[in-house]
Amino acid sequence: MAHIQLPEGLPGIRGAMAFRPETAKPLNELVEILLHGPNSLTPGERELIATYVSTENDCYYCQTIHGAIAAASLGGDEELVKKVKADFRDAPISNKLKTLLVIAGQVQKGGKHVATQAVADARETGATDMEIHDTVLIAAAFCMYNRYVDGLGTTQPKDEAMYRERGERVARDGYITVSKEYLPSVVTR
Amino acid sequence: MAHIQLPEGLPGIRGAMAFRPETAKPLNELVEILLHGPNSLTPGERELIATYVSTENDCYYCQTIHGAIAAASLGGDEELVKKVKADFRDAPISNKLKTLLVIAGQVQKGGKHVATQAVADARETGATDMEIHDTVLIAAAFCMYNRYVDGLGTTQPKDEAMYRERGERVARDGYITVSKEYLPSVVTR
Repeated sequence: MAHIQLPEGLPGIRGAMAFRPETAKPLNELVEILLHGPNSLTPGERELIATYVSTENDCYYCQTIHGAIAAASLGGDEELVKKVKADFRDAPISNKLKTLLVIAGQVQKGGKHVATQAVADARETGATDMEIHDTVLIAAAFCMYNRYVDGLGTTQPKDEAMYRERGERVARDGYITVSKEYLPSVVTR
Repeated sequence: MAHIQLPEGLPGIRGAMAFRPETAKPLNELVEILLHGPNSLTPGERELIATYVSTENDCYYCQTIHGAIAAASLGGDEELVKKVKADFRDAPISNKLKTLLVIAGQVQKGGKHVATQAVADARETGATDMEIHDTVLIAAAFCMYNRYVDGLGTTQPKDEAMYRERGERVARDGYITVSKEYLPSVVTR
């Protein structure tokens, strides 16, 4: 049961966002820019960073929905998402993404854990300052979203089909568009 | 030295925001609503929550600037801010704020650390669902802001007068207004 009275029928962050649409607006805008907006990192790469951080933070809802969005962004490759979650160093992803995931893991532990060597390693594989910046902010932002979702004790159904179906829609239409279903008052103003 | 090439002369989160104005916009809107917007918790109470979480995350810039904004919001009471940072249980603040700080401290450790008993204790002192929600989200958001500021290795000058002066202006005018100085392209669109 959630720690506060959240609207029913809306799992995970959706219940929290419907409870407080004023804060849902910037929360949705931030994730839209970071994961779905124009970027030299693909949506699939950015969703994998979000999925990995959510896994490290042990947030079931976030790691499952972002894993589903990542898979949908990667042509339905659910196996790849599983491999990144289990051990990204051994997964068939680019060396650049591996170095960015190292930085994301350091941010998850705390901002001061980010090592100069890890940033140098990322740059060595061709990562730009903007890509390093976005990796740090994606990882930091999911330390917020994960705590928001778990800290309120939101409902997190074990329903793979639900996450898969929603993951495909978010991958296609983005966060703000899909949020219109449950946040009408926010997105229309 | 920062991990990436940030604009010079802008300490802490300001350098990071000027580097990436697109994400600065929702980041500023979120903190404006949470700490400066209309609320049954005073700005001083909410700034104390932000200061406490930033202290637990060991982020010098954030704990110092939000401590300064808190003090300015509380009529210049820097001693109270120091007491809350050192041991809030022994500080001259309301029992309600003490129970909310307990919840904020649990969120800082991780979303799953929030205890049903802590929420019941807050409710016992009169805390509403909205106040509990905002406490969870403020604490979660500062787990992001702190990681963003430290994870990029931003400049964090030891200059008490700078923080005090800026704290007074943010307390008076709010985050979005003050950010116009260094984010002209964001706030005008």
